[in-house]
Amino acid sequence: MTQVESARQGKTSPELLRAARREGADPEQLREEVARGTAVVLANAGRKNVVPAAVGKGLRTKVNANIGTSQDSSSEQLEMDKLRAAEEAGADTVMDLSTGGDLDAIRRMILAKTSLPLGTVPVYQAAVEAAVSKGRLSAMTAEDLFAVIERHAEDGVDFATVHCGVTRESVERLRQEGRIMNVVSRGGSFTVEWMMQNERENPLLEMFDRLVEIAHRHDMALSLGDGLRPGCLADAGDRAQTQELIVLGELASRALEAGVQVMIEGPGHMPLDQVAATVILEKTVCHGAPFYVLGPLVTDVAPGYDHVGAAIGGAVAAAAGADFLCYVTPSEHLRLPSPADVREGVMTTRVAAHAADIAKGVKGARDWDDAISRCRRDRDWDKQMKLSLDPERARQLRSSSQPHTPDVCTMCGDFCAIKRVEDFFEKKGKEG
Amino acid sequence: MTQVESARQGKTSPELLRAARREGADPEQLREEVARGTAVVLANAGRKNVVPAAVGKGLRTKVNANIGTSQDSSSEQLEMDKLRAAEEAGADTVMDLSTGGDLDAIRRMILAKTSLPLGTVPVYQAAVEAAVSKGRLSAMTAEDLFAVIERHAEDGVDFATVHCGVTRESVERLRQEGRIMNVVSRGGSFTVEWMMQNERENPLLEMFDRLVEIAHRHDMALSLGDGLRPGCLADAGDRAQTQELIVLGELASRALEAGVQVMIEGPGHMPLDQVAATVILEKTVCHGAPFYVLGPLVTDVAPGYDHVGAAIGGAVAAAAGADFLCYVTPSEHLRLPSPADVREGVMTTRVAAHAADIAKGVKGARDWDDAISRCRRDRDWDKQMKLSLDPERARQLRSSSQPHTPDVCTMCGDFCAIKRVEDFFEKKGKEG
Repeated sequence: MTQVESARQGKTSPELLRAARREGADPEQLREEVARGTAVVLANAGRKNVVPAAVGKGLRTKVNANIGTSQDSSSEQLEMDKLRAAEEAGADTVMDLSTGGDLDAIRRMILAKTSLPLGTVPVYQAAVEAAVSKGRLSAMTAEDLFAVIERHAEDGVDFATVHCGVTRESVERLRQEGRIMNVVSRGGSFTVEWMMQNERENPLLEMFDRLVEIAHRHDMALSLGDGLRPGCLADAGDRAQTQELIVLGELASRALEAGVQVMIEGPGHMPLDQVAATVILEKTVCHGAPFYVLGPLVTDVAPGYDHVGAAIGGAVAAAAGADFLCYVTPSEHLRLPSPADVREGVMTTRVAAHAADIAKGVKGARDWDDAISRCRRDRDWDKQMKLSLDPERARQLRSSSQPHTPDVCTMCGDFCAIKRVEDFFEKKGKEG
Repeated sequence: MTQVESARQGKTSPELLRAARREGADPEQLREEVARGTAVVLANAGRKNVVPAAVGKGLRTKVNANIGTSQDSSSEQLEMDKLRAAEEAGADTVMDLSTGGDLDAIRRMILAKTSLPLGTVPVYQAAVEAAVSKGRLSAMTAEDLFAVIERHAEDGVDFATVHCGVTRESVERLRQEGRIMNVVSRGGSFTVEWMMQNERENPLLEMFDRLVEIAHRHDMALSLGDGLRPGCLADAGDRAQTQELIVLGELASRALEAGVQVMIEGPGHMPLDQVAATVILEKTVCHGAPFYVLGPLVTDVAPGYDHVGAAIGGAVAAAAGADFLCYVTPSEHLRLPSPADVREGVMTTRVAAHAADIAKGVKGARDWDDAISRCRRDRDWDKQMKLSLDPERARQLRSSSQPHTPDVCTMCGDFCAIKRVEDFFEKKGKEG
C-alpha cells in the first residue's frame, strides 16, 4: 500500500509518523494532507536507510541540494564531498543530477551514504547513455527511458523528476509566443530534442499510466518537472509555462487517483512581483499539490550572486505557499558547484525557507528567533553561537575580531546599545 | 536657496539636473517630487566634490554602505580600503559611523576622497567625545550636540541621521509594552541614556527648529533616525516603533515646510509578512517621505548570513515602495566589517535593489536583465561577464572550472539545454 492509499484508509504509516514527529507536526493532520495530495512523504517503499521527510501544506519549508557529476567533472570523491557538505549544512533532501561517469554507481553510492530522501532525473541517464552508446541523444527509445526509471525506483530513489508537460501543444505555444531563452531545463531540452528529431509526442505523456504504475509499485513520488520553465525574467509566466502547468495539474490528479504522490516543479527566473501570483496559480490549477521551486531568481544580472536572488524569490514564494525550495549556489550559470558552493547554497536557501516559515506561521518557527534574540540581548555569545543557523561561520567571524571588552563585539565596543540601556528597562521573557 | 525651495519655485537646480540625468530620470518629474518632499537630492550646498544622488519616488532604489571606525578598530587606512571597496562595488552613498580615533580627521578624509554623498550620525561624535573628555556619555550637553551637527554640515556632510523621535512618550510606550531587545540603535541608546540620566526631553525634539535651521543653511538632508527600531522579530511593528514613526512624520512635515529635505529611517528586524505593511504605513504617516531601511532582516537566527536575510527584506521593502537600502554585511552582529564584507554587502544589497526596481517598474531596470539574457542565450560569455553585476566575481568563478567545450559551462557541458535546442527555435529579439 502506498502512502496515499494508507492515508486514505485513515492509517498513519510508520514513515508518515516519523516524518511528522521529526518536525513536530500533527500526524493526523499530515495524514489528511497526504490523502488529499497537498503533502507528500518522501520515502521509497524499498529503501531501508531513508529518514522520511514530508513536504507540503502546514509543514516546514524544505530545502533540496542538487549534487551530481557532469561531463567535465565526474569524480566520485567530489560528489561524496558535496553530499557531506549538503548534509552538514542541513539540506532536507538531495538530488543526484549526474550526467558524467558511471551513473548507476554514483547513484547507488549516494543512496548508500545518505539517509536523506534522494531525487533523480531519470531522463538524464537515458539520454546521456543514448548519446554515448548510440551516437545521438534522440536515439534513446521510450523503452530505454522506462528502463532507467524502473532501475531508479528499484534502487530506492524517493522522488523522480519527470518532464511530462513538455508536449507538442505546449512546445508549439512556446514557439508561437517567442522567447528570449526558449528551453533552459536540461530534461526539458532533451525531451524537446527527442520529440523534434523523432517527430513524436512525449512518451512520458503518452505512457503516463506506465510511469504511474512504476511509481506506485515502489511508492516513489513523482515530481512533475517544468521542462518549459522560463530561463530569464522576460520569459516568465508566459503561455508556454502556463500551458505546461495546466497539463501537469491534470497529470497530478491522475497520479493521485492511482495512489501515487506528486509534486509540481516551478521556475526558475521571475520578476519579484510575479512570484506570489505564480504560487497561487499553481495551488489552484494543481489542486494544492506541493510546489517545488528552483529559486525563483528575481534578476538575471547577478551571476556569482544567484544564491541571493534565489533566496529573495524563494522566501517570497514559500511565504505565498511554495513548499519546497531547490537551492541555488553562487556558481549557478557559471560552473558545476564545489563543496563550498553547496554549503553556501544550502545555508542561504535555509535563510529563505525559515523566513517564509515565520511569515506563513509554521508552528514553532518563530521560537528559534526569539530564543536567539534573548541570548543576543543577554550577550550570551556562547549560546547565541550554538543557536545560530551556521555556528561554525558565526564563531569564525566573531573570533576573527576580538573586542577589548569581552561581552560586546567590535562593531560598537563599549558603545553597544543593548548593553548601555539594559539598566533602564526590565527584561522581558528573561526565563525564555 | 535649498533644493526644496528652488524646486517649489519651479527651478531645476544644477544638482537636481545632474542627479536626474545620471539615472535617466525626468528632471521635471524629479523637481515635482522634491518640491512635494517625496524625493531628495543629496548634495550639501557647500561641498564641491559631491556627485549628487537622488532618492525617492520613481527613482532607482539606492544602496548605502556604512563604514567607520570603532573603539576596537580605528585605522584610517582600513577605512580608506572600505571606502574604496564600497565605491568599486557600486554603492550610491556612504555613511561614516566612526566612533574610534580622530573623528573629525576621518570624516574629512572620507569627504575628500569620495564624490559619493556622505551621511553621518552626529550624536556618535558628541556622545563619544563626552564619554572620553567628561567621563560619561550623558555629560554631553545640547550645545555639544548642536556644535557637532554644525561642524558636520560645514564640512560638507550631505545627510545626517538625527534621532528626534526618541521622546519621553515613545520611550514610555516602549517600557509599557515590553520588548525582548529594548533599544538596539546606537544613536537611540545614546539618546535614551542621556534622557534618563539627565531627566530631560530629547534636545533634538525640543530644539528641532535649531536643527532645521542648520540643515537649511547647508542644504544638508535630515534622515530622521528610528532610534527605537526593533532589534528582533518579536519586537517588530510594536507601539513604540509606531509611536516614533508618527513623531517622525510630524517632524518631517515641519522640516519640509521650512525648506529642508527629509528622509525617514526604518527597521531593522521584521517578519517577512510585515515588511510591505510597514512601508505602506511609513508612506502614509510620513506623507510619502523617502523611506530608508536597514535591511530589514527577516530572521534573527542567521549571523554570518544577515546580508541574505537583509536582501530578502530589502527587496520586498523596496518593491513595496522603500527608496533607499542600507546594506547589511555578513559580519552584522559579529564584528566591524572588513573591506571584503563591504564588497559583499554592497553587491548583495544591489541584487535586492535591482530586483525591486524591476518589480516596481523603474524605467529601464528590466533592460539590463534582457540584455544579459540574450548574451546567455547566445553563449556570448565575454559580453555576459561584462554585463554582470560583478564581472570580477563572475569571471573568477567561470575561469576556475574550464569546460572542454568552450562555449558552455561545466554544469551541463555538451548537454547545455540552451545550446541543444537552439536550432529548433527562432531567436527573439536577436538584435537586442
